[in-house]
Amino acid sequence: MTMADDTQRSGHVPTLADVARAARVSSATVSRCLNEPHRVTRQTRERVMRVVRELGYAPNFGARALAARRTDTFGAVIPTMDNAIFARGLQAFQEEMGRHGITLLVASSSYDPGLEQEQIRNLAARGVDGVMLIGHDRPEDSYRLLQRRGVPYVVTWSHDPSQPHPSIGFDNRKAMMALMEQVIRLGHRHVGLLSGVRYGNDRARLRAEGVAESMQRAGIAADNLTTVEARYSIDAGAAGFAQLMQRRPRPTVVVCGNDVLAAGALRQARAMGLNVPGDVSITGFDDIDLAEIVTPGLTTVHVPHRQMGRGAAEILMKLRDGQDPVPPVELKASILWRESLGAAP
Amino acid sequence: MTMADDTQRSGHVPTLADVARAARVSSATVSRCLNEPHRVTRQTRERVMRVVRELGYAPNFGARALAARRTDTFGAVIPTMDNAIFARGLQAFQEEMGRHGITLLVASSSYDPGLEQEQIRNLAARGVDGVMLIGHDRPEDSYRLLQRRGVPYVVTWSHDPSQPHPSIGFDNRKAMMALMEQVIRLGHRHVGLLSGVRYGNDRARLRAEGVAESMQRAGIAADNLTTVEARYSIDAGAAGFAQLMQRRPRPTVVVCGNDVLAAGALRQARAMGLNVPGDVSITGFDDIDLAEIVTPGLTTVHVPHRQMGRGAAEILMKLRDGQDPVPPVELKASILWRESLGAAP
Repeated sequence: MTMADDTQRSGHVPTLADVARAARVSSATVSRCLNEPHRVTRQTRERVMRVVRELGYAPNFGARALAARRTDTFGAVIPTMDNAIFARGLQAFQEEMGRHGITLLVASSSYDPGLEQEQIRNLAARGVDGVMLIGHDRPEDSYRLLQRRGVPYVVTWSHDPSQPHPSIGFDNRKAMMALMEQVIRLGHRHVGLLSGVRYGNDRARLRAEGVAESMQRAGIAADNLTTVEARYSIDAGAAGFAQLMQRRPRPTVVVCGNDVLAAGALRQARAMGLNVPGDVSITGFDDIDLAEIVTPGLTTVHVPHRQMGRGAAEILMKLRDGQDPVPPVELKASILWRESLGAAP
Repeated sequence: MTMADDTQRSGHVPTLADVARAARVSSATVSRCLNEPHRVTRQTRERVMRVVRELGYAPNFGARALAARRTDTFGAVIPTMDNAIFARGLQAFQEEMGRHGITLLVASSSYDPGLEQEQIRNLAARGVDGVMLIGHDRPEDSYRLLQRRGVPYVVTWSHDPSQPHPSIGFDNRKAMMALMEQVIRLGHRHVGLLSGVRYGNDRARLRAEGVAESMQRAGIAADNLTTVEARYSIDAGAAGFAQLMQRRPRPTVVVCGNDVLAAGALRQARAMGLNVPGDVSITGFDDIDLAEIVTPGLTTVHVPHRQMGRGAAEILMKLRDGQDPVPPVELKASILWRESLGAAP
């Protein structure tokens, strides 16, 4: 016999008050457990949530105030809609939620942490049931804003167990180091890194760190690494590549922070009459459609976009339903060999 | 002296009731003029809106119910976030609104008119101040839903003056006919059309009509045109191209409904050992980044994405501010020559 048995037998649809009575707490405490769980002790929360499950209490046929909160709408704030960098993951995220009748609203922050915070605030104000975020790097205030309003969130595209947030992603540093191992094995000792802008972008930061760490481990002098930062656009990639090619000794490989930069680098190599990979190798990161369609095809890091998007939706729905946060989920990224990486000349 | 003078002199911030009194209508009528203008006669609306302007009445410091409506959030429903087809226009739309402190929320309908309607309803329920839509083809209900709730909207990517909706776009049929004129001039008489799915997509439909009409005008037999429909993905484009190449006599040119299909066609041509444009010409439509980055570069229709996005934001803000709808705005699309279209072999 559970402590909720009495109420269960009464036959009516359980209300917030029923949960409060059975758990021997106030209605306000039940509401906090459901909507602002961080404001309640773990012990109280566990007791209340057990009763919630036992009674089969569901906000949408329970208290009206709670019912009104549930909108079956989730939000996502992504850094950009350009170049389809996040498109495949987002599509999988949306498809999974669509199967549960949930609508997705997406805002794009242009890689601006301040703008991202406004958009998070806006989505919370519009009453979304949960928010998907890209990467961990953002002002603490952005997380607090969601926590205070009891809006669950999940961080994607980056696995970092030192971070206290629900997340699903891959280890950007480790993935880049796996690629660099191949680059170094192929004899490259002078490396150009065409990095995305690292400020506010842990993916870009960790990938760049992976390049430096790999070279250090292989005993290659830090001077042999030249880094240029560029925003993620084909034009910026082309300009960055041209800049790296002026360095003497000239890099034999240009490792790019993502496929968009690598596509720009390829275009510029062609314009400069450089053969890829004969004269210079180029690598990408992400494995978006672009990586396959360019000539030569890009050797790149394949990111499990669909698996990540689907997983993020599952985590978010569980959190929305009041389940305890799961530990960070790590996905594997792998090297995808095409033609753009070859032996050092 | 205007009919609103009395109220103006009283010095207090004008309310909905002041507008009603000065315009000699009920408060409900004023509210309807502001929120459901189609339910009011033109005469009444003009009278009320004149008073609104004269009094300097603004919902956000007027009646609370109206104030609550303004959220400084606009919505957009686009068919897909994949392949960056809509990315550049959307980015310009968002930048323009960002300058006015407005946040953009985007939903993607997967080219499904039913899903689009749900998303329009959802955005309206979330209280957006206006909605951007892509193309004219959708159930009448979707428009009525916005009209009933008084949410302004603007149709983009398609200019069709026969449609009664505020819009900014280009003439998809005319643009395709301009491209086809060049195709025919270069001696092509057997044409493969790799079209997007036309159901619910007026852009795809009008582009396909443009191809057929151009051939008819040039006196080329309808039999010389083979059409394959494919959803907008690189893989589907590759498969569609392979299918068209089986047709005898083989088409000397494959005209594609957009650049994504054309990129897939190029990939497949390479896989089949066909030289482009030596053995077969391929054309695109849109001029997204992909068109420039593939080899050979795509000859395509350049769509003024940024101008369209910016213009859509301006129209929507004017409508939100209670201005009368402007006539449909037509933008020019032009041919962008690269290497993929050559003389018929």
